[in-house]
Amino acid sequence: MYMTCRKTNGSAKRLTYRTQLLSMLINAYQQIRERTVQLCLPLQTEDYVVQPVVDVSPPKWHLGHSTWFFEAFILKPYLKNYQEFDPDYNYIFNSYYENAGAHVMRTDRGNLSRPTVQEVYHYRQHVDEAMRSVLQHNLSHEVEELVGLGLNHEQQHQELLLTDIKYILGHNPLFPAYKKTVSATDKIADDSWITIPKGIYEIGFKGNGFCFDNELAPHNVWLSEFAIQKSLVTNKEYIEFINDGGYENFRFWHTDGWDWVKGTHHKSPLYWHHIDGKWLKYELSGGLISVVPEDILCHINFYEASAFAAWKGFRLPTEFEWEIAAEQLDWGTRWEWTNSAYLPYPGYTRAEGAIGEYNGKFMVNQMVLRGASLATPSGHSRISYRNFFHPHLQWQFTGIRLAK
Amino acid sequence: MYMTCRKTNGSAKRLTYRTQLLSMLINAYQQIRERTVQLCLPLQTEDYVVQPVVDVSPPKWHLGHSTWFFEAFILKPYLKNYQEFDPDYNYIFNSYYENAGAHVMRTDRGNLSRPTVQEVYHYRQHVDEAMRSVLQHNLSHEVEELVGLGLNHEQQHQELLLTDIKYILGHNPLFPAYKKTVSATDKIADDSWITIPKGIYEIGFKGNGFCFDNELAPHNVWLSEFAIQKSLVTNKEYIEFINDGGYENFRFWHTDGWDWVKGTHHKSPLYWHHIDGKWLKYELSGGLISVVPEDILCHINFYEASAFAAWKGFRLPTEFEWEIAAEQLDWGTRWEWTNSAYLPYPGYTRAEGAIGEYNGKFMVNQMVLRGASLATPSGHSRISYRNFFHPHLQWQFTGIRLAK
Amino acid sequence: MYMTCRKTNGSAKRLTYRTQLLSMLINAYQQIRERTVQLCLPLQTEDYVVQPVVDVSPPKWHLGHSTWFFEAFILKPYLKNYQEFDPDYNYIFNSYYENAGAHVMRTDRGNLSRPTVQEVYHYRQHVDEAMRSVLQHNLSHEVEELVGLGLNHEQQHQELLLTDIKYILGHNPLFPAYKKTVSATDKIADDSWITIPKGIYEIGFKGNGFCFDNELAPHNVWLSEFAIQKSLVTNKEYIEFINDGGYENFRFWHTDGWDWVKGTHHKSPLYWHHIDGKWLKYELSGGLISVVPEDILCHINFYEASAFAAWKGFRLPTEFEWEIAAEQLDWGTRWEWTNSAYLPYPGYTRAEGAIGEYNGKFMVNQMVLRGASLATPSGHSRISYRNFFHPHLQWQFTGIRLAK
Amino acid sequence: MYMTCRKTNGSAKRLTYRTQLLSMLINAYQQIRERTVQLCLPLQTEDYVVQPVVDVSPPKWHLGHSTWFFEAFILKPYLKNYQEFDPDYNYIFNSYYENAGAHVMRTDRGNLSRPTVQEVYHYRQHVDEAMRSVLQHNLSHEVEELVGLGLNHEQQHQELLLTDIKYILGHNPLFPAYKKTVSATDKIADDSWITIPKGIYEIGFKGNGFCFDNELAPHNVWLSEFAIQKSLVTNKEYIEFINDGGYENFRFWHTDGWDWVKGTHHKSPLYWHHIDGKWLKYELSGGLISVVPEDILCHINFYEASAFAAWKGFRLPTEFEWEIAAEQLDWGTRWEWTNSAYLPYPGYTRAEGAIGEYNGKFMVNQMVLRGASLATPSGHSRISYRNFFHPHLQWQFTGIRLAK
Repeated sequence: MYMTCRKTNGSAKRLTYRTQLLSMLINAYQQIRERTVQLCLPLQTEDYVVQPVVDVSPPKWHLGHSTWFFEAFILKPYLKNYQEFDPDYNYIFNSYYENAGAHVMRTDRGNLSRPTVQEVYHYRQHVDEAMRSVLQHNLSHEVEELVGLGLNHEQQHQELLLTDIKYILGHNPLFPAYKKTVSATDKIADDSWITIPKGIYEIGFKGNGFCFDNELAPHNVWLSEFAIQKSLVTNKEYIEFINDGGYENFRFWHTDGWDWVKGTHHKSPLYWHHIDGKWLKYELSGGLISVVPEDILCHINFYEASAFAAWKGFRLPTEFEWEIAAEQLDWGTRWEWTNSAYLPYPGYTRAEGAIGEYNGKFMVNQMVLRGASLATPSGHSRISYRNFFHPHLQWQFTGIRLAK
Repeated sequence: MYMTCRKTNGSAKRLTYRTQLLSMLINAYQQIRERTVQLCLPLQTEDYVVQPVVDVSPPKWHLGHSTWFFEAFILKPYLKNYQEFDPDYNYIFNSYYENAGAHVMRTDRGNLSRPTVQEVYHYRQHVDEAMRSVLQHNLSHEVEELVGLGLNHEQQHQELLLTDIKYILGHNPLFPAYKKTVSATDKIADDSWITIPKGIYEIGFKGNGFCFDNELAPHNVWLSEFAIQKSLVTNKEYIEFINDGGYENFRFWHTDGWDWVKGTHHKSPLYWHHIDGKWLKYELSGGLISVVPEDILCHINFYEASAFAAWKGFRLPTEFEWEIAAEQLDWGTRWEWTNSAYLPYPGYTRAEGAIGEYNGKFMVNQMVLRGASLATPSGHSRISYRNFFHPHLQWQFTGIRLAK
Repeated sequence: MYMTCRKTNGSAKRLTYRTQLLSMLINAYQQIRERTVQLCLPLQTEDYVVQPVVDVSPPKWHLGHSTWFFEAFILKPYLKNYQEFDPDYNYIFNSYYENAGAHVMRTDRGNLSRPTVQEVYHYRQHVDEAMRSVLQHNLSHEVEELVGLGLNHEQQHQELLLTDIKYILGHNPLFPAYKKTVSATDKIADDSWITIPKGIYEIGFKGNGFCFDNELAPHNVWLSEFAIQKSLVTNKEYIEFINDGGYENFRFWHTDGWDWVKGTHHKSPLYWHHIDGKWLKYELSGGLISVVPEDILCHINFYEASAFAAWKGFRLPTEFEWEIAAEQLDWGTRWEWTNSAYLPYPGYTRAEGAIGEYNGKFMVNQMVLRGASLATPSGHSRISYRNFFHPHLQWQFTGIRLAK
Repeated sequence: MYMTCRKTNGSAKRLTYRTQLLSMLINAYQQIRERTVQLCLPLQTEDYVVQPVVDVSPPKWHLGHSTWFFEAFILKPYLKNYQEFDPDYNYIFNSYYENAGAHVMRTDRGNLSRPTVQEVYHYRQHVDEAMRSVLQHNLSHEVEELVGLGLNHEQQHQELLLTDIKYILGHNPLFPAYKKTVSATDKIADDSWITIPKGIYEIGFKGNGFCFDNELAPHNVWLSEFAIQKSLVTNKEYIEFINDGGYENFRFWHTDGWDWVKGTHHKSPLYWHHIDGKWLKYELSGGLISVVPEDILCHINFYEASAFAAWKGFRLPTEFEWEIAAEQLDWGTRWEWTNSAYLPYPGYTRAEGAIGEYNGKFMVNQMVLRGASLATPSGHSRISYRNFFHPHLQWQFTGIRLAK
């Protein structure tokens, strides 16, 4: 399954969902599935189709893929007499490129004008109807877990829907707004430092609700004393870094980061444009607007975050430092790059079967992000959540928190 | 202007249109513009948007670009008080990438979900209305020539619309048909040879109607005696070439062609699939269907055409041989690769001004194709017509005629 | 300085060298510098020049670069009246590509036929003579540290010399041997497991001698109970993995590793050739010879090591597990891939000045290797040593140790 | 055979050599083979090895390849009991990459440190000795033709040796001179025009000596009246083009040429450097020296030649115009780009057997150059000679002659 998420964020995970009652599950299914559709309402049909870069998926694909999850892992194995909507959708909406049949599909997702958006919505309805039937009958613990996993999976794609829509519209020369309503301003920064004493701390998910398997099992780590900033870095601070030649001085950068700077000629965060001496940026609400210095910085990659921290004389926190300090921090508007590579926890074990089989496969070459962003669905964030991306990627709603 | 055609087929040309009466021009304008819309009727909105490879343009772009031609070269310079539809369309629908302003447009045509299809149709209506006003008033000879050129330009894009739609739908794993009606079968091949004696022959356009400047001026060439086949090569003959290891034997290929074979792993014409021992191909009418051996071969590039001819022990004709023999040939269903490079005729001169300024810029690295194809608009083909493409391209409706 | 090592292995490091007496230093300088020359004796002049891939440097460059280190960091700043050998060598033998002047040097290292090998040896003599003068006079603690660092730097390049010579000769179709003498056979594998109880352990360099700064400072970690194999994986076991379809089954691989397999078409360790049903491999002594099943496997990358471990049902150890178990292990013939990303230790701080300024710049996207290899100079290995490479690289003398 | 020339200049050709006496052939063999060695005398061993770009071959390869020609096409088929020097040289010094065995040779020519230069010279001696034996005995007409072809082939590689040595040394940051003696100054330009009346002219080789098959057979062409400049374009004129923004104005360029300008960022001829407001260039004699305005321009590609001509308001001649006017022109110091694509003459037919089998394979995507250069061996140029290269290549000694 998680191969299907390869262009998105295939957070490998194991279901530990246990106590949610059936009626709650039916409600959750309806609300989460409905929210995906709501997110797409402002789109024109054309917006569903394009894929400007490989890391971005067309909205149409997100709609189909999150639906295919329920069809492939619940309806086909568990619903007797279920009528598959269209066998070709297996190739179009999953990513088992290695499997037989896939040789037909030589093109990228963004080159597929068919199935049409309307057909994909029909597919959603078809699957939702069958899922209602599943949910109203004898629901085994196994299927219950799969439904919970499917819903969390869909929530991840809701966030990706927004980041991908922003990329699609923000790279259109007309800079169309996604919706006109202005989002709430980001919180004012408070640059005080919080100090955490050295000692043994426990890391990992310890509650009763849902978590992904990469958050398990709880385990001890030893931390030296450290200080971490209460708030995230602002546009103003980052503009100082730019103005001080941050993108021209290799001393601040990792070698791979400097190669990225030279290779891509980036000189600012994603979506920023320097026009007539002023910094503008593309926003989902409003299109091309002025950069507000006091707002929290967004859309930088790990290399930029590290270079900024080095320029400032500080460093990024590790994911463990973040988790221990989290309760005292202002967080939730940006995914925060940590200086931790995405690796298995000591107690990490693979789940059995198809769902679990790829759990560890993203655990190389990626960095952990902690927190959550404005685009994260409510109820989908927690202190132990481990997000991860390759260090060159900017298109998520990412920010910087300093440590020392 | 012709830079605008760079991903298509910017047949550079000079207008020699002279005698068409005004009412005919109004009629022609209406019919040709209307035909472009008709060609798009079977499309879904999503089909207008995608661009699977660089040589293919999204249908939406063809609609906009052929409209922009009239706005940029006629309405803005010649129609007083003309209200430009949207200044941004200059960047979106022309191709003066070198000019100021274009730095905003970093994405490819296929990544542009906006303007929407509906907005592009509004653009067409806006321009057509203004053009009606132009056509009904004092039409100078100069504007008359530009209208004629614009209409011929649009006819070229009509053919490209069909080849590009075929590429878009033919590379979709669902292989959707463009329309269900079956096209007339290609003519049965007649493999007799026509012999033309050596001597001095006159080449080039000599009539009174419209031609492009690359067909001018008429001039003499000396030809040795040669023989040319009355009909085009069939699928059956080409399958023999495939079965005889044609794609595995470098002896039949140009060096650059062999590099293409090894680099792309092509083993058959474009749109062909070998499934369960049978040859299938994608067709606009019908989707994925069986290859009919007796049908005329289509969708091979110059390298394949040359390799086939070498395997057969023959050669491709030159464009001059073709033009002299044309009246005795069955032609009109395939563009026929010749062994002539696209170069200026001896009497070739540049037209003055913006329209003419790029006339010669495609005259390197491309090969001449003669004839016309099933996709060529009626009234847009003639014996002196010089089409041209890079030798590796397969997606036009191309065929092979042998000479010796 | 460490930018100069970017194509090699720029183990960033801080000098903690303290107690070595001057006479020992003079001896060490002479022996280590001499050993580099000895390693090159079997080479033909032509072998010094080529660079088959970007990660490999020509032997000539290693000779010059390790010499340039002493010239740039000791002779020029500290030896009064030192006469620079040739100012152009700054561009040729360092890697400050970003600095002024470098624009002249557009070619890769392997395209530089000049300076000649003889000139580079003259350069070495020139620098060694001046260094003798430095070493025999008032040697400040600072310079002493720099000499120690320069010698450790040269030892790293001695290992790279061997790996790069192997790559150069092993990719020559004549498969020339480097020297004819047969190396001692690798130890017979002993596949027993060692179990280490859970608890707090101390990690990092704690001795008095030299270490790099990435080994500092000693700090605690908590480890769960684990078991680790006493010996390394043999060719026999890896051939079983190959024969069982290890390179065809994506389930064993990281996503990035699977992309590597598909993109490079690798089906075996580097230097292996499957000819007439037999596995052969290139060796420095002997050229193309049979793979001995009982020998220890060599030349696999991190992706292959991980996939093998997954196929076997085990995993790779972390670098901390390795360090704690090291005294009970057979190690020293292969660099062993761990499942730890190369990241700073908690106590890691940057050294001051030019030497230290790039210390952290490789700490992203690379994996830690522990142990040492047959190519590691004697006296250059220790239990706390942290080697690191990008996960796709195979050309070091790398092996696999399993954990569970 | 001509596949062997793919990175060089595989002028496909058919031997029409007839009347040369045996003693002359022995002399010619000795002198031509000796001259190749003389050309290499100023080289250091290291210079023989490198290959900075794909179009350039290492001098060592030229030495081996021109020798292999005689071994493969004469000694092995015709000399009884001939002892092959080394079977592996077949893979190393020919270019039948497609054939069995070649899978071993994965690296580029420039990565081969072995065989050593000395071994290649031994190879030459071995083959020359055997060839002497062939030449002194019953020499069939067939073998005689092959010897003549081999010698012409070697002369072509003598020119390539010089162009490739220039590229190797001219891209070294030390800019070493090849030899110190200053070459004779290029002739002073005489910018008068020669006018040729329209009419029927005969083209192609008509003499008794050696020619390549692409010069055959003589045939008529019709030419319009044209004028052609007596002399070639000077550096001074080209600097005016540069200063007038020639490289910034797309109007002067072919579309493919403009893509080359934008993709490579070239702003001047190859080997030119603009340093401190002055134009310098690398020369084989002298290294980096000032550009002399009155000297004849060198090292521009077809795109640059065409753009310059367009800027000047003229055009390049066709190869036929050149051939007819040649006797009145100053030529012989630069290969002159014509506006003719490299295509077969009407009477062109393939030679039988291995030698002739690839004759036509370069006849696509290349432009014809006429004349000869300072690097062309004496006795290897004639008015009907057709040289050809891809239009983006600059490293031959190329110049511009204008026509109108």
